[in-house]
Amino acid sequence: MPKISTKGLQMPASPIRKLTPFAEKAKSEGKTVYHLNIGQPDIETPEGMLNAIKSIDFKVWAYTQSEGTVQYRNKLAEYYQHHGYTISPTDILVTDGGSEALTIAISACIDHGEEVIVPEPFYANYNAFTCLSDVVIKPIQSYIETGFALPPISEFERMITPKTKAILICSPNNPTGYLYSKEELIELKELVIKHDLFLICDEAYREFCYDGKEFISPGHLEGLEDHYIMIDTVSKRYSACGARLGAMVTRNKEVFAAALKYAQARLAPPAVAQIAATAAIDTPQAYFDKVINEYTERRNLLVSTLNKIDGVYCPNPGGAFYAIVRLPIDDSDRFCEWILDKFSYENQTVMMAPATGFYSTPGAGRNEVRMAYVINQNDLKKALICLEKALLEYPGRIVSAKSEKASY
Amino acid sequence: MPKISTKGLQMPASPIRKLTPFAEKAKSEGKTVYHLNIGQPDIETPEGMLNAIKSIDFKVWAYTQSEGTVQYRNKLAEYYQHHGYTISPTDILVTDGGSEALTIAISACIDHGEEVIVPEPFYANYNAFTCLSDVVIKPIQSYIETGFALPPISEFERMITPKTKAILICSPNNPTGYLYSKEELIELKELVIKHDLFLICDEAYREFCYDGKEFISPGHLEGLEDHYIMIDTVSKRYSACGARLGAMVTRNKEVFAAALKYAQARLAPPAVAQIAATAAIDTPQAYFDKVINEYTERRNLLVSTLNKIDGVYCPNPGGAFYAIVRLPIDDSDRFCEWILDKFSYENQTVMMAPATGFYSTPGAGRNEVRMAYVINQNDLKKALICLEKALLEYPGRIVSAKSEKASY
Repeated sequence: MPKISTKGLQMPASPIRKLTPFAEKAKSEGKTVYHLNIGQPDIETPEGMLNAIKSIDFKVWAYTQSEGTVQYRNKLAEYYQHHGYTISPTDILVTDGGSEALTIAISACIDHGEEVIVPEPFYANYNAFTCLSDVVIKPIQSYIETGFALPPISEFERMITPKTKAILICSPNNPTGYLYSKEELIELKELVIKHDLFLICDEAYREFCYDGKEFISPGHLEGLEDHYIMIDTVSKRYSACGARLGAMVTRNKEVFAAALKYAQARLAPPAVAQIAATAAIDTPQAYFDKVINEYTERRNLLVSTLNKIDGVYCPNPGGAFYAIVRLPIDDSDRFCEWILDKFSYENQTVMMAPATGFYSTPGAGRNEVRMAYVINQNDLKKALICLEKALLEYPGRIVSAKSEKASY
Repeated sequence: MPKISTKGLQMPASPIRKLTPFAEKAKSEGKTVYHLNIGQPDIETPEGMLNAIKSIDFKVWAYTQSEGTVQYRNKLAEYYQHHGYTISPTDILVTDGGSEALTIAISACIDHGEEVIVPEPFYANYNAFTCLSDVVIKPIQSYIETGFALPPISEFERMITPKTKAILICSPNNPTGYLYSKEELIELKELVIKHDLFLICDEAYREFCYDGKEFISPGHLEGLEDHYIMIDTVSKRYSACGARLGAMVTRNKEVFAAALKYAQARLAPPAVAQIAATAAIDTPQAYFDKVINEYTERRNLLVSTLNKIDGVYCPNPGGAFYAIVRLPIDDSDRFCEWILDKFSYENQTVMMAPATGFYSTPGAGRNEVRMAYVINQNDLKKALICLEKALLEYPGRIVSAKSEKASY
């Protein structure tokens, strides 16, 4: 039998989806499973976007331009300008989701064996996108104690080698919910200019900032025109994950030209999604106000409830809809499997993503899980009761975690 | 300024799309441009498929399963079974177009620096998909004189090294229109079994076989269960290029497991396209009969007209909707640019794809172009008149080509 590739063999499975068989088994046994594992919001997609799908009037479902339709790129540039960026339609490459935007950005900027520095924990799928091109992730650990703030710039500087091509950040952060401050971004700006690196910023959660905090992007800072590459998506903004529509945005013409070649090779992004996303730009602010209010309430519920559970610690995320939560457990992979497979409370259980998959430092995240607060508050309450009960029963419970928590 | 990647710099631009600026200039000057450059059919998408888009009734445009929805995979398996394959839903990975199917197949099977053998001319974008992973294409030239039949197996055998992991074919072929025979596939089967290689087959044009010829796939041969990987797409079958929906199909469980990890990382294929493609499986045979009849007439018109032009030679393609055509010219890149930029006949001109981009052997294809017969017969006639007039005016015309033609 022919052998598969070494990288195909070695690539870690997604921590977000790998426990799906256990969730399916639990459901087949009649259990209700609360999904906190995946960033699939229950929020309704804007009506204007769905109506645009229903109103298509073409006879031939044709390719669009490889870089995206003129209509959508014009509209999207308006959206960015409204959000304080200096971006024109020709800086925008429309992609098959944020995933492809990042894959293309990596291929355009980084050769195999070269390095990208990423604060960890980081979005687990970055591993796959770099693995595809044999690019090496160099992690810099951030810590739950500081709410996962940007690690000291000296740590980044220490990590830079002749092979370093880029720094990749995500703000508001998936999986931590941390929202980078303007001061942190200015520090990063000076660093990437000094060392001539790309600064790739995954901004999938731009809209979701809480407590009146303002979202700041490296794209808002002057002097980064050649360094800054934005990864964007409509998935979370409009609760349209199934659209598979993203964008890679850069004012660096060389990066854009190389990225366009990859985009031309895969022909075009999805056509109907572009029609819908063009309509979505006119979504009224009231839609976002309502959604942000809902996520804020969920976050408050999640964080306050978790911190009342013995041995559990959850920092207060400033954005996105995730939290990394420390649990009094021996091994998050084992715990997340156990809670689906062996546990139930009133015939319910919870699916979470083990945090180990969001770290590349061996051993890190073993007592942490990622939770996505994408289910309604009633279900969220029930899920957290399940978790509390499960922690009491779990054979791998570590009792010392409580005293650690007391030190914050 | 940070430097882009070497591969991003070196990757060739798509020969199908790189002349677009010249076509746009010609149009802005008021010229009619006949597009024979790109496989974008003018055929209408089946009504049932478009109605399925208009009838969506979800409120949240959610991710589907990474491997595709249960409904679509079940329906698609039925389609394959109807076409003589032994394929079950769990052998099917639904992808973002045939492009992603091939990218994922390559990543699952071939490491960087390893090799895949491809008969050339080949679909130009294979260069990009291999470049992404630093996989090396080893071309084996096929020739216009034999209508681009499979090169002798001894040629393949000569090319196999310890780094060879796969053979990649496309049948019916893009760009040549050649339809591989059962005998040729049996030869390839014996070869891949002998050398333990994957046999990847791009079957985007399965439906389009002419003159009563039957399509045969390596998937129809027994004994290739572990070797055969099918690349498929709905783009051409239903004239639904904008759907961006394909599939990677294999009964090799190891390949599937590795491919699924990549698929999980990019989350999911487009949701609306899957709903539409599920409906499309019920497209009546009458739709295909009509389309195949239309393509046959176009092919007959194209081939007979071209072969009457002084110095031009076009073999008779058995399938797909492309032909590689030899022209009495010095350089197909120069000619294809010139005809858009400097030439017009009654204010019309033609866009073609220079064949050089479909070869990786340096210098090959310099007197050939790829034509896609995806426009109506009336326009096709006008396009071919333009071409004939252009060849008389083109400063780089080579007169000796006529005598070469006489030898066939």
